[in-house]
Amino acid sequence: MLTLRTPYLLYLGDSRHETDAKTAKGLRDWCPQHVLGEWSVPGCPVQLGLPRLSPAEAAARGAGSLVIGIASVGGAVPDAWLPDLLAAIEAGLDLVSGMHTRLSSFPVLVEAAARRGVQLVDVRHLQQPYPAGTGRKRTGMRIATVGTDCALGKKYTALALTNALTARGAKATFRATGQTGIMIAGQGIPIDAVVSDFVAGAAEVLSPDNDADHWDVIEGQGSLFHPAYAAVTLGLLHGSQPDYLVLCHDPTRLTIEHRPGFPIPPLDEAADLYLRLARLTNPTVRLAGVSINSSALDEAAWVTYRAEVEALLGVPVCDPLRGGVDAIVSTLPGV
Amino acid sequence: MLTLRTPYLLYLGDSRHETDAKTAKGLRDWCPQHVLGEWSVPGCPVQLGLPRLSPAEAAARGAGSLVIGIASVGGAVPDAWLPDLLAAIEAGLDLVSGMHTRLSSFPVLVEAAARRGVQLVDVRHLQQPYPAGTGRKRTGMRIATVGTDCALGKKYTALALTNALTARGAKATFRATGQTGIMIAGQGIPIDAVVSDFVAGAAEVLSPDNDADHWDVIEGQGSLFHPAYAAVTLGLLHGSQPDYLVLCHDPTRLTIEHRPGFPIPPLDEAADLYLRLARLTNPTVRLAGVSINSSALDEAAWVTYRAEVEALLGVPVCDPLRGGVDAIVSTLPGV
Repeated sequence: MLTLRTPYLLYLGDSRHETDAKTAKGLRDWCPQHVLGEWSVPGCPVQLGLPRLSPAEAAARGAGSLVIGIASVGGAVPDAWLPDLLAAIEAGLDLVSGMHTRLSSFPVLVEAAARRGVQLVDVRHLQQPYPAGTGRKRTGMRIATVGTDCALGKKYTALALTNALTARGAKATFRATGQTGIMIAGQGIPIDAVVSDFVAGAAEVLSPDNDADHWDVIEGQGSLFHPAYAAVTLGLLHGSQPDYLVLCHDPTRLTIEHRPGFPIPPLDEAADLYLRLARLTNPTVRLAGVSINSSALDEAAWVTYRAEVEALLGVPVCDPLRGGVDAIVSTLPGV
Repeated sequence: MLTLRTPYLLYLGDSRHETDAKTAKGLRDWCPQHVLGEWSVPGCPVQLGLPRLSPAEAAARGAGSLVIGIASVGGAVPDAWLPDLLAAIEAGLDLVSGMHTRLSSFPVLVEAAARRGVQLVDVRHLQQPYPAGTGRKRTGMRIATVGTDCALGKKYTALALTNALTARGAKATFRATGQTGIMIAGQGIPIDAVVSDFVAGAAEVLSPDNDADHWDVIEGQGSLFHPAYAAVTLGLLHGSQPDYLVLCHDPTRLTIEHRPGFPIPPLDEAADLYLRLARLTNPTVRLAGVSINSSALDEAAWVTYRAEVEALLGVPVCDPLRGGVDAIVSTLPGV
């Protein structure tokens, strides 16, 4: 499993727009215990409200990595960033990036990192060898988020479930499978970058044997209903062998994002297919609840919609941002 | 798509057992038009009955590649093979291998190939970038073999279907997805080596738009019921968008090979799940037939079993090695 060196210095570069800083804000909000401060090019208008620390100051306070907290970067690291990135390397920090462009594609960074003995960590691209899946039942409890589509709240829901479990005194670990999740957790496996023959095996590595009353909360990826990414979803589902599923959905989304010819199925059909396939590696898997992104619904519409889905599926329906997920967690055994 | 330089010189090394030569025999039997001859270390007892040609003689007759036709090789290329492999490189042949150990891991071969300007092709490991799947419906007809388990006849059935289509005058192309299939076809994509995010996209590349009356016959991989490899199976199924499926099964196999805790489901349940998932990218997909490895059944048992499965599923049931697959092909539209 990939493990990042925490704590982090969050880097905003010369970002002009608040929305560019989505990754940095996610880290600030979801793993404050891993975040020492922020840094950016002089005059950068975007700020996180954290202590402003230069790479050298952050290193002096024990920082392990400078994390590039900007999502919308094209093909190159801007020249304006290079002095800061090189200063971070010289200060002994690893550089962590979730950008499509690899840090390792910039010779100046590669040379400096090698000389200083620090790592360039391209979270999105990291490939390690994994074993083939065994299907062996592991100890401990597992709950996985799955979705009717990509990008509608599976990571957010998994983080909220982890926090709700912990708040009730349960032992729980968020298991990250995508780049932002891995930065938040400080470890994980970028599951969609794994060779297809080993996806289930990598998912087995991600949530190893654990205490009988420990909960692994596994961040889902993709969707069984996505014509490009269902393979990732199924391999992750099989290797995770979840005891419980939480189905994530956005009621305003009628077709798969960027694939308008592919309708989102009714929720009962979606839950049925996920359960049928998940039974291969855990015959007792059950649906624990539904997590809805209800931001488009006013209060009356949300109350009505929630009641309809609860009647349809017979499980609690929550919006993590509108009342939290405690209604789901409270139904889990021993919690 | 990976394309090999044909025709081939089949290499048997110093193999001691007939069964070691499974790959070479498969090539001899399934693509005689691609095979010029055989070569081996002096005294090698295994022979294929083909013209015996040294690498230089084969090159003089137009050979494009020396194909290592031995399956059971461990971690290293035996020293006894090196003079022949180097002679093949010097003669201008590509070296093609389906071994787990990469040809490219032997510096002496890498250096010689670079000097001579020929390729070392590790079919099992070949990784190229592929696009994400689009789900766009392509022109032409597609039939895919799928299985209740791995290694029970999906490649053999696809080859038999291709030959039966061609024998009836239909336009048909075998689309290879595994190393032996790729050697037989001279091209293909080793689908289980593709990064999971791009499996469906690679399968789309494998069977591009074609004439409306052309049949792509797609070699299936893995099984939806295999706890390690179902992701490969599903991505290939979605990207192939088959019009017809042929379900392959071995009635003596009660559990997944090497995974004794995983039972093989009843055939109607298996067909139902394959069809349900295949409908995502082709809503009109149908089951065309069932292909059985009946070698363990005597004639009476085979007749009874076949009738039972035909009654259960309502489609022709064939054994490619026991009467061929024409009963399946004859039900396809326009064939």
